[in-house]
Amino acid sequence: MPTVLLYCSPGRTEARKQAVVEGITDTLVEQGGARREDVLIIFQNIEPGDSGRGGVMGAAPRLTAAD
Amino acid sequence: MPTVLLYCSPGRTEARKQAVVEGITDTLVEQGGARREDVLIIFQNIEPGDSGRGGVMGAAPRLTAAD
Amino acid sequence: MPTVLLYCSPGRTEARKQAVVEGITDTLVEQGGARREDVLIIFQNIEPGDSGRGGVMGAAPRLTAAD
Amino acid sequence: MPTVLLYCSPGRTEARKQAVVEGITDTLVEQGGARREDVLIIFQNIEPGDSGRGGVMGAAPRLTAAD
Amino acid sequence: MPTVLLYCSPGRTEARKQAVVEGITDTLVEQGGARREDVLIIFQNIEPGDSGRGGVMGAAPRLTAAD
Amino acid sequence: MPTVLLYCSPGRTEARKQAVVEGITDTLVEQGGARREDVLIIFQNIEPGDSGRGGVMGAAPRLTAAD
Repeated sequence: MPTVLLYCSPGRTEARKQAVVEGITDTLVEQGGARREDVLIIFQNIEPGDSGRGGVMGAAPRLTAAD
Repeated sequence: MPTVLLYCSPGRTEARKQAVVEGITDTLVEQGGARREDVLIIFQNIEPGDSGRGGVMGAAPRLTAAD
Repeated sequence: MPTVLLYCSPGRTEARKQAVVEGITDTLVEQGGARREDVLIIFQNIEPGDSGRGGVMGAAPRLTAAD
Repeated sequence: MPTVLLYCSPGRTEARKQAVVEGITDTLVEQGGARREDVLIIFQNIEPGDSGRGGVMGAAPRLTAAD
Repeated sequence: MPTVLLYCSPGRTEARKQAVVEGITDTLVEQGGARREDVLIIFQNIEPGDSGRGGVMGAAPRLTAAD
Repeated sequence: MPTVLLYCSPGRTEARKQAVVEGITDTLVEQGGARREDVLIIFQNIEPGDSGRGGVMGAAPRLTAAD
């Protein structure tokens, strides 16, 4: 609390997810005035066939890169 | 896309919200490999009387500080 | 955490919302094995003109009664 | 059920919202095989200052047009 | 953007999901005044054992039919 | 409707989930004035590696206990 639901593609490494959690938490604490222990971040994985943009089924929301 | 739903209290300044958006976006781009233009962040404001933790109605999720 | 998003109509009394929070929290602790302090419940108020069922705009999800 | 959460800007007319509800419901019934009475659509209104894309605070998700 | 979260059962064919995405997108563009490229639809699959209605665990929200 | 999204860890037994659904439904009917047949509860399972609290990746939201 704040609670963050993050809809993105699956397949990222644990290290990358850890870095995302740290960065978002730092932002909410430093810029948003939240207490660190109140920040909860939940990844909601979206498979490629489970989203569409502009009427076209396609790639899931990307949150990966070459690791 | 990634899409972020951020549940927190209302009442923060525009400057603070802008800083939160910038920080989360930077994190998702730099740590998560997202394309900047794909990152959508939506604030969901929770009034103090609209949440409860541990069975107790109470303060909304905090995302503010003295500005 | 567990985190509960509860979509329903606005307009219920504080006492009623408190009773709902207590009841759901008790259930998650006693039946679900959650730690009490981890349970976060967030009400998402849906105005009557902001929902439709069966193709018909109509009453918001009800969570009120005569108090 | 299916349940649809629709995040968009406020300010559209009742007629336009009704048309959106009808069109989405028809799609879910005719293309998705849902039962009409099971389709619930909930609008989640996002004010302009409550979203950011690409790191920039800005216009809310649009769902309006000149009426 | 508009962003649509669609909670329904898994198991539908790609063709059916594509038709649902097209129909909802068309509705949001033609009836709701959205820009086509802004419409993002995300399917959230609900397994049969992961929902309950009226106090009874049961079938997931249906979005399938005989194909 | 009311519609409840419940984010928690996977792995609980069917009996436990049934008890959670019954308890939350009873609360919404008895304390919240909802109609029983309108209450829809959807479990959103969060795997341990898909959440972080206080900046630390960790255990998913707990909703289990020794059965």
